[in-house]
Amino acid sequence: MKTLIIVSHPTVLESGSQQFLIQSLPDDEDITLHLLEETYPNGNIDVEKEQALLREHDRVLFQFPFYWYSSPPLLKKWQDEVLTEHFAFGYRGNRLQNKEFGLVLAIGLPEKEYQTGGREGFSISELTKPYQAMAKKTGMTYLKPLTIFQFSYMTEKQKKALLIDYQQYISLEQPISLKRREEWFIKQLTKTSKETLPGEHATFVIEEAIDKIEDNRLELDELRLHLDNYDDK
Amino acid sequence: MKTLIIVSHPTVLESGSQQFLIQSLPDDEDITLHLLEETYPNGNIDVEKEQALLREHDRVLFQFPFYWYSSPPLLKKWQDEVLTEHFAFGYRGNRLQNKEFGLVLAIGLPEKEYQTGGREGFSISELTKPYQAMAKKTGMTYLKPLTIFQFSYMTEKQKKALLIDYQQYISLEQPISLKRREEWFIKQLTKTSKETLPGEHATFVIEEAIDKIEDNRLELDELRLHLDNYDDK
Repeated sequence: MKTLIIVSHPTVLESGSQQFLIQSLPDDEDITLHLLEETYPNGNIDVEKEQALLREHDRVLFQFPFYWYSSPPLLKKWQDEVLTEHFAFGYRGNRLQNKEFGLVLAIGLPEKEYQTGGREGFSISELTKPYQAMAKKTGMTYLKPLTIFQFSYMTEKQKKALLIDYQQYISLEQPISLKRREEWFIKQLTKTSKETLPGEHATFVIEEAIDKIEDNRLELDELRLHLDNYDDK
Repeated sequence: MKTLIIVSHPTVLESGSQQFLIQSLPDDEDITLHLLEETYPNGNIDVEKEQALLREHDRVLFQFPFYWYSSPPLLKKWQDEVLTEHFAFGYRGNRLQNKEFGLVLAIGLPEKEYQTGGREGFSISELTKPYQAMAKKTGMTYLKPLTIFQFSYMTEKQKKALLIDYQQYISLEQPISLKRREEWFIKQLTKTSKETLPGEHATFVIEEAIDKIEDNRLELDELRLHLDNYDDK
């Protein structure tokens, strides 16, 4: 499965959260990182090139800071110019059909503010309706977004957990299940020995993998116990 | 009451619906028409000038084609750059508080598609959540949007009715009531004699005014009848 990550940020080199995510990406031929503002500093989008990119990938992610509950302007321009009729929708416009679409949102306030009564007053599910509608119109499967609340206040442990979530969001088959997480960790463990993951995170990944596999075992054992009790009755 | 109409359209001079709306505007010192792409062809927004404009007006309207369920990119850039912390929100950021905010949306598909089960699958109320959240965060009162579905298929009569709705949306005190509509028509009638309204529409406005006043009378008479019947029992 090939994933296209379209990053939009007015000053992506200065963004701590974007740089953290971008630098964590493994060197993997199935992952294409596409920095929109760096590619098109004058805002003149090469529509044919973008449509070709979309065709080559199975999962398309929009990654951006959630300013005013939407994307930076260049990504909106990209939507308006690249997602044309007869390509993305309308008669014969089925080139995105059955691909997966996801959002990776960097959000400045805590999660609890995004509900009725909270300071923002609306949930992320409500505020992202325009993207849900875009996925629907283009025939893409809308994935549960990866929301990153208040990156700058995260502890090192939280950041490393985010890194795992991010890499799974990019490459894990949907829907994400315990079994698939376990398989992913085993794959990462194998890769780690080949030094393809950033070195500083390797230890953490190995520890997490062991934890997950142990959790998994415990859960399976517990289920077996329940079943055994049931049989006894 | 002073109204600021911020129009955003990548090619506003070529848009039939936008030109129709813009050309219908009366020459009124209480109405400021602000064509974003014409003012900033290079996209470099004068933030101080924009904030001054906002301060001078009581009602702020965003008028744009509803491409991909949101505004054209320049209006998003305007939001990101003009609606700054300490101006529009946050500590001492109360400059927009108690102003009114409204959307004038030009929409390509018929209204019935904007519901669960329709081709678009989401209602306008759902898709405009980001603007509702913006109004909430900045302390503005969110008005019921003026939605213009399929302008190019409208009959002449529908277009003229739209013209009335549009001018009322711009200048009528909220919430719009029968009484306020009547007062508005009487005001327009007076203005018409001064030739401040576009000539070709004057006859229609006068006819509409008479109709509305007659409807009003009928409704009042009916209410009186009900009350009389009630008293008799």
